Amino acid sequence: MDAKQVGQDAGGSDSQSGWRQALGYLALIAVTVGGFLVIRHLGHDLTSPSLSPEAEGFGVAPSKAKVDVLMHVLLALVVIILTARVLGALFALAKQPAVIGEVLAGILLGPSLLGRIWPDASALLLPPTVAPFLSILSQVGVLLYMFMVGLELDLGLMRSRTHATVAISHASIVLPFLLGSALALVLYPRLATSDVPFTVFALFSGVSMSVTAFPVLARILTDRAMNRSRLGTIALTCAAVDDVTAWCLLAFVVSVAKTKVGGAVATTVLSICYIGFVFVVLRPVVRRLIARYDRAPSPPRGLVAGIFVALLASALVTEWIGIHAIFGAFLLGVIVPHEANVARELVRKLDDIVVILLLPAFFAYTGMRTQIGLVSGATEWLLCGVIIAVASVGKFGGSAVAARISGMSWRESAALGILMNTRGLMELIVLNIGLDMKVISPALFAMLVIMAVVTTFATTPVLHMVLHRRTVPIDAPSVA
Amino acid sequence: MDAKQVGQDAGGSDSQSGWRQALGYLALIAVTVGGFLVIRHLGHDLTSPSLSPEAEGFGVAPSKAKVDVLMHVLLALVVIILTARVLGALFALAKQPAVIGEVLAGILLGPSLLGRIWPDASALLLPPTVAPFLSILSQVGVLLYMFMVGLELDLGLMRSRTHATVAISHASIVLPFLLGSALALVLYPRLATSDVPFTVFALFSGVSMSVTAFPVLARILTDRAMNRSRLGTIALTCAAVDDVTAWCLLAFVVSVAKTKVGGAVATTVLSICYIGFVFVVLRPVVRRLIARYDRAPSPPRGLVAGIFVALLASALVTEWIGIHAIFGAFLLGVIVPHEANVARELVRKLDDIVVILLLPAFFAYTGMRTQIGLVSGATEWLLCGVIIAVASVGKFGGSAVAARISGMSWRESAALGILMNTRGLMELIVLNIGLDMKVISPALFAMLVIMAVVTTFATTPVLHMVLHRRTVPIDAPSVA
Repeated sequence: MDAKQVGQDAGGSDSQSGWRQALGYLALIAVTVGGFLVIRHLGHDLTSPSLSPEAEGFGVAPSKAKVDVLMHVLLALVVIILTARVLGALFALAKQPAVIGEVLAGILLGPSLLGRIWPDASALLLPPTVAPFLSILSQVGVLLYMFMVGLELDLGLMRSRTHATVAISHASIVLPFLLGSALALVLYPRLATSDVPFTVFALFSGVSMSVTAFPVLARILTDRAMNRSRLGTIALTCAAVDDVTAWCLLAFVVSVAKTKVGGAVATTVLSICYIGFVFVVLRPVVRRLIARYDRAPSPPRGLVAGIFVALLASALVTEWIGIHAIFGAFLLGVIVPHEANVARELVRKLDDIVVILLLPAFFAYTGMRTQIGLVSGATEWLLCGVIIAVASVGKFGGSAVAARISGMSWRESAALGILMNTRGLMELIVLNIGLDMKVISPALFAMLVIMAVVTTFATTPVLHMVLHRRTVPIDAPSVA
Repeated sequence: MDAKQVGQDAGGSDSQSGWRQALGYLALIAVTVGGFLVIRHLGHDLTSPSLSPEAEGFGVAPSKAKVDVLMHVLLALVVIILTARVLGALFALAKQPAVIGEVLAGILLGPSLLGRIWPDASALLLPPTVAPFLSILSQVGVLLYMFMVGLELDLGLMRSRTHATVAISHASIVLPFLLGSALALVLYPRLATSDVPFTVFALFSGVSMSVTAFPVLARILTDRAMNRSRLGTIALTCAAVDDVTAWCLLAFVVSVAKTKVGGAVATTVLSICYIGFVFVVLRPVVRRLIARYDRAPSPPRGLVAGIFVALLASALVTEWIGIHAIFGAFLLGVIVPHEANVARELVRKLDDIVVILLLPAFFAYTGMRTQIGLVSGATEWLLCGVIIAVASVGKFGGSAVAARISGMSWRESAALGILMNTRGLMELIVLNIGLDMKVISPALFAMLVIMAVVTTFATTPVLHMVLHRRTVPIDAPSVA
């Protein structure tokens, strides 16, 4: 069929000999088909060998199941990407970060909405057998994403902090962490899983309140042309410090949760050794390599491959140590100088593929696991409200009060507090880890997902209200 | 730990207040830890709820298994990427396409070598449970790769063909296809699987001999600065026609193999309808969208997302129809005009990630399935030799004789024949499909993999021998 079409194409460009070519082509097809039919006739009586079971045993992945998996994964990706893009665009129109729409798309396609109103469609779209595959794609996506977050993190920002940013970043970690831990006193008897110790649960609860979505924050600030203003710089600096601290805390929680009592010491020691190795040994090596090979406008493929291998290896090491793979990916991103050519090029290359193709898998996977239906009844919605309130008071309150004490105006302090209360995607990553480790129950997972969406959602409108036609000097010189 | 480090960083930049800050920081840590210990004490007597089984049932992917999978997938990727890069670099030093080294890396890490000399390492590196996950990553990689191959394919080349290229491209498909089908008469009684009909086996055997690795060919020609020469242009044009035809044939084989007798008609009709839809309806739409939105130096994210969704959807449709998902991805690549900004940008973005990160998963997966050990004994190695000979005679002979008849010199004709005999990665994709569909046995799979490696490997040195200090007019005007 195609051969004919190709033949016609050829004829079209050279019309005088078109017919001759077409005829020649038909003759050729006739010869081919005829030849094949002769061969087929000759082979008609042949029988295939009955192979021994071990030669027949294809070892890996039976054919039927795998094809289905590919089809389901493709279907899930197409639907989730489309839904995520549409909802993301709608939220972007409403001046909201697109990420909220994308997260909501995952939740809507999961058991919370689609599974409830149209179970057949949900079962076709995201059958449980596909979940592990969606999970591995989404984990690769999240690893690459965290690497990019690390890449974009400016360690220089942390070094050039003023007294104000020191105070604010401390307060914006300590207060939500302690409040979150205290909240565990309420949540633990109601929503912990049956075999998690209180200490682990309280630590996790604290960490889950302390996360700030550095990338979403950066996007909001860039969208409003605030990223170079004093407020923007302070917010970014504090968010960077918060994120690093929160991820270290999370790594600690994971190690404690995984290794029970005895192994925690070993895990902690190994983690410190590895972090030390990365900063003391690996960082100078990476810097030297980049300084040597990063002159060309497009970095050599060997360098890019080296960074990818290092990224995967770092993730592997932290996963093996017992703190999560994400931590290693993030760490490696941090030590690559973010102003290097190769860093910019990597972000540029990874950005679309990770954000468009792989993160939607993460949203779909998170959505599959979020069962809003588990949050039923007045008590549970009340608890959900309490969680949102505690998270917001801790993060917003801690940052805003510290900012005011440091001498910022109330208006600026409030704006900063609201910015720091953005949780976005980072919170979801933390929550999935908690659910994986069975530290939190699915019901608590659903509540915390709601909390993440609500606090992220609230940022932009509240910020707009507070700043109110930007009376803050946006073009004031940066503090950096 | 990290908090302390951050504190010291801050102190370093502002040394006079360094000690005060450090002390303040220690106090803060003390308060935090103290606060947490109080909370922990308060929560000491709390018990977690015994949740109902359905609330405890985490639905998707049990934690323990999944973490292991991530670790194994990361380990497999790190090892395979490193091995592939090293072997690829060695082969590149020997003026060979790097892809041969990468394919060999997969084979060496599989049961053929590592599994034989060090079974424990092989079991740790690539346990059978990880295979499905590696498979899905590699399939996504291959989809994206085939999309890129389609993107880089210049349909204009096919239209601007001369009589020479028409004759050569026909001969270089028909001869290897018929020879391959005839070879099935020998192979079927010995190496087919027990339930495959002869027709399907013979068709597949013919297709597997007809594939030319368009991308590897393009790379070889570019490396030798021959891609603009007359010989290079003819080779690229013929390879493009061959590839399109071979993939159409493969789609036909897959549909016949999958649907047995009755459904084949439906599959064929659906395939033709879909191909018609893509070229008649989708192609003008894509062209118009690109013409409208592709003016900016970096294409808008919406356009990129749209193309990704279309790519996945096209793969989904062809998978659903019953011809392979790869075909849809390739088809979509073909209709995106390859000179558009967005096409170049997509290739640039996808290239590193697909080639460095995802294709190694494909090499590892292919290597896992390649059991060279199944090719044992003189008869089987003889058969393997026969396969290589038939494949080479068909492809090399068909192209070279047709080129000579069209008026090219013997030297040029031979060079062209050798170039067309390059099979590379494309052949492996075809073979994996055959193994998935259980058309070929693992032993025949191993033989055909050897054939692909040998014919690709032979291209460069033989080409060098034939061209011998390039007496061919490399700077002759292009035929295009």
